[in-house]
Amino acid sequence: MSDFTSYMNAALEEAEAAASRGEVPVGAVVVDAAGRIIGSGGNETRALSDPTAHAEVLAIRRACARIGSERLIGCSIWVTLEPCPMCAAAIGFARCHALHFGASDPKSGGVDHGPQVFNAASAHHVPEVYRGASEHQCAMLLRDFFAKKRTLS
Amino acid sequence: MSDFTSYMNAALEEAEAAASRGEVPVGAVVVDAAGRIIGSGGNETRALSDPTAHAEVLAIRRACARIGSERLIGCSIWVTLEPCPMCAAAIGFARCHALHFGASDPKSGGVDHGPQVFNAASAHHVPEVYRGASEHQCAMLLRDFFAKKRTLS
Repeated sequence: MSDFTSYMNAALEEAEAAASRGEVPVGAVVVDAAGRIIGSGGNETRALSDPTAHAEVLAIRRACARIGSERLIGCSIWVTLEPCPMCAAAIGFARCHALHFGASDPKSGGVDHGPQVFNAASAHHVPEVYRGASEHQCAMLLRDFFAKKRTLS
Repeated sequence: MSDFTSYMNAALEEAEAAASRGEVPVGAVVVDAAGRIIGSGGNETRALSDPTAHAEVLAIRRACARIGSERLIGCSIWVTLEPCPMCAAAIGFARCHALHFGASDPKSGGVDHGPQVFNAASAHHVPEVYRGASEHQCAMLLRDFFAKKRTLS
């Protein structure tokens, strides 16, 4: 298994843990320049009563706390779903070197869709963006979660 | 003094406190439907080593924690500066009823500038937006802060 697969697998584990808590199954990990996972998170908006507690924001906050810096120079972030505008902007503020995401999000995404945060002339830092890692698995997790919610409601 | 002036004054006090800590002087308060300030914050990105610790995000997180909900239904948020894309999206996720901001931010704003988050067809919730409250004071605070920084560097 390549490192690339293992990073997205770690993000998928966070997403699965979020689903088991009744949260939208999105997960993220931050990987430093040496290849170590230094922060991870799954959605916790409901548990924390915090609309900003998306997987990416939590992973970034934890990684920054760990290294004692507001900038994640040389780090990459791996997310199961295309980041929303809030998270895309947070990834830019954190100065992440690269963003890898799995499933595309035409409804709420902020990278390839909606306000396309990194395409704005005012974007101060634009990471390299890589799409489609474990795309099917990432998308199925979300599809199953919402299908189950509809059945229950 | 009208309530409107007092809310922006409270946000300005947060911005001044941020400046005195060496943080970019932006402040925000969340006001509930009854007119009470239920959350406030000034930039703390440096002190907290957290790139998401903008005034608006902190004020929203504190207000949500206080009422035990991830949604600030019927609340308004008062910010000294036009929110960036991250904060604009967070204000949308929090379902704030109204956004009042003081100074315009052509360089990093995300409401009237850059990705114009609320203008995207995918914006799930768009608050009423009011501009220009205490604009001069809000802008001068930022101008003085950066002028002083340039003199010192």
